[in-house]
Amino acid sequence: MTTDELLKENERVDDLQRNGYKIIQDPGRFCFGMDAVLLSGFARAREGARVIDLGTGTGIIPILMEAKTKAAHLTGLEIQEESADMARRSVQLNGLTDKITIVTGDLKEAVSLFGAASFDVVTCNPPYMTEHHGLTNPGGPKAVARHELLCNLEDVISQAAGLLKSGGNFYLVHRPFRLVDIMVLMRKYRLEPKRMKLVYPFADKEPNMVLIEANRGGKARLTVEKPLIVYEKPGVYTEEIYTVYGY
Amino acid sequence: MTTDELLKENERVDDLQRNGYKIIQDPGRFCFGMDAVLLSGFARAREGARVIDLGTGTGIIPILMEAKTKAAHLTGLEIQEESADMARRSVQLNGLTDKITIVTGDLKEAVSLFGAASFDVVTCNPPYMTEHHGLTNPGGPKAVARHELLCNLEDVISQAAGLLKSGGNFYLVHRPFRLVDIMVLMRKYRLEPKRMKLVYPFADKEPNMVLIEANRGGKARLTVEKPLIVYEKPGVYTEEIYTVYGY
Repeated sequence: MTTDELLKENERVDDLQRNGYKIIQDPGRFCFGMDAVLLSGFARAREGARVIDLGTGTGIIPILMEAKTKAAHLTGLEIQEESADMARRSVQLNGLTDKITIVTGDLKEAVSLFGAASFDVVTCNPPYMTEHHGLTNPGGPKAVARHELLCNLEDVISQAAGLLKSGGNFYLVHRPFRLVDIMVLMRKYRLEPKRMKLVYPFADKEPNMVLIEANRGGKARLTVEKPLIVYEKPGVYTEEIYTVYGY
Repeated sequence: MTTDELLKENERVDDLQRNGYKIIQDPGRFCFGMDAVLLSGFARAREGARVIDLGTGTGIIPILMEAKTKAAHLTGLEIQEESADMARRSVQLNGLTDKITIVTGDLKEAVSLFGAASFDVVTCNPPYMTEHHGLTNPGGPKAVARHELLCNLEDVISQAAGLLKSGGNFYLVHRPFRLVDIMVLMRKYRLEPKRMKLVYPFADKEPNMVLIEANRGGKARLTVEKPLIVYEKPGVYTEEIYTVYGY
């Protein structure tokens, strides 16, 4: 099918600057952010790995991971049918239907859907916000993507732990204010945090994202990596961001 | 007494660049490091606060905290009698015997020594190292200060929690590789991490220290502060370090 045949009303196609891959997005629903790109830059997958992305939205993370790794197969799980459908069409648009499968389903049921210890790598860019007051459209796609309405952090971490083989890795991007919850829950579910990277918008500002690699059944010892600074100066990315984005 | 009368063999007096305060140290035993200075710069104590430093060594932290805050009284607890004696003489040298008390004792017994909920602020620069193999002098003052020989992280955190009044703050400096242990233990003992600052030797290197403020009984929400970078370039401190050091 041509690009036009794959597009619905209000949707647009963006170039991902990787392997010529493109993604279909609807700005009225939700567009992927820098967090998804940084997570796929931080995550690792060995040749032949089976990878799953929990709450995949537009499918951005599996598509970027497919471009960057030699993973055998990638699955994206998404609860919102319209988002899952858009992700499926992006997979088609990139000719990746053999490599990436988009499944419509609830991440809280991921272990029963896919089976325990069935993946080498789990990625997740979950909703960050715990407070829901003031939401004008609590059932809308943006609210579901941003707020813990349909799943919470413990759901994400417990399902990731269940999906991973022993020794497999979980990659999470989140907000630094939840760091204690993240570490306490990861240890509770035997996902030991092994690498952490803080993302600072500017070198002299508080970090606004944290990237974490946790190992299923791993030994306690965390490596905090060098900081990732996003902007050299207002409007100008640092070298590292250009590298992650593939420009 | 004069400075000379307060000094023993092999000891020297260093200027702390704060209130004209000085400190007695013996390079053969243990000299304070940047971690102690950064912790006293990171820690806060309200006017009238009662403060205790666990494992005070030369007494560097209470002396700097006395210079920087309006705390009513500061206690330094130290298990090694020779270090405690040296700290006591530094307190004398600075004319601070009314404000700072150095107690010889085991931090594992701190709550029974001082009573539960008896302090507003607890500080600690504990031994960092968990592995003890290869120690040539495991009973020596440097080994005791650096390795978890006489106390471990859980002792430090559980005693700090017991010593603090509800709403009081604990300030800890440690190595980033223990961050998960620190957060899990703090939450276990109801010391909620509220502020965290990573110390990076250079802007493009891994951090080698972490500073944490935890609140007794506090609500879960961590603020990760802007990074503290130590060196502008080799041999040249950044502005922030000069400020903390008071140059």
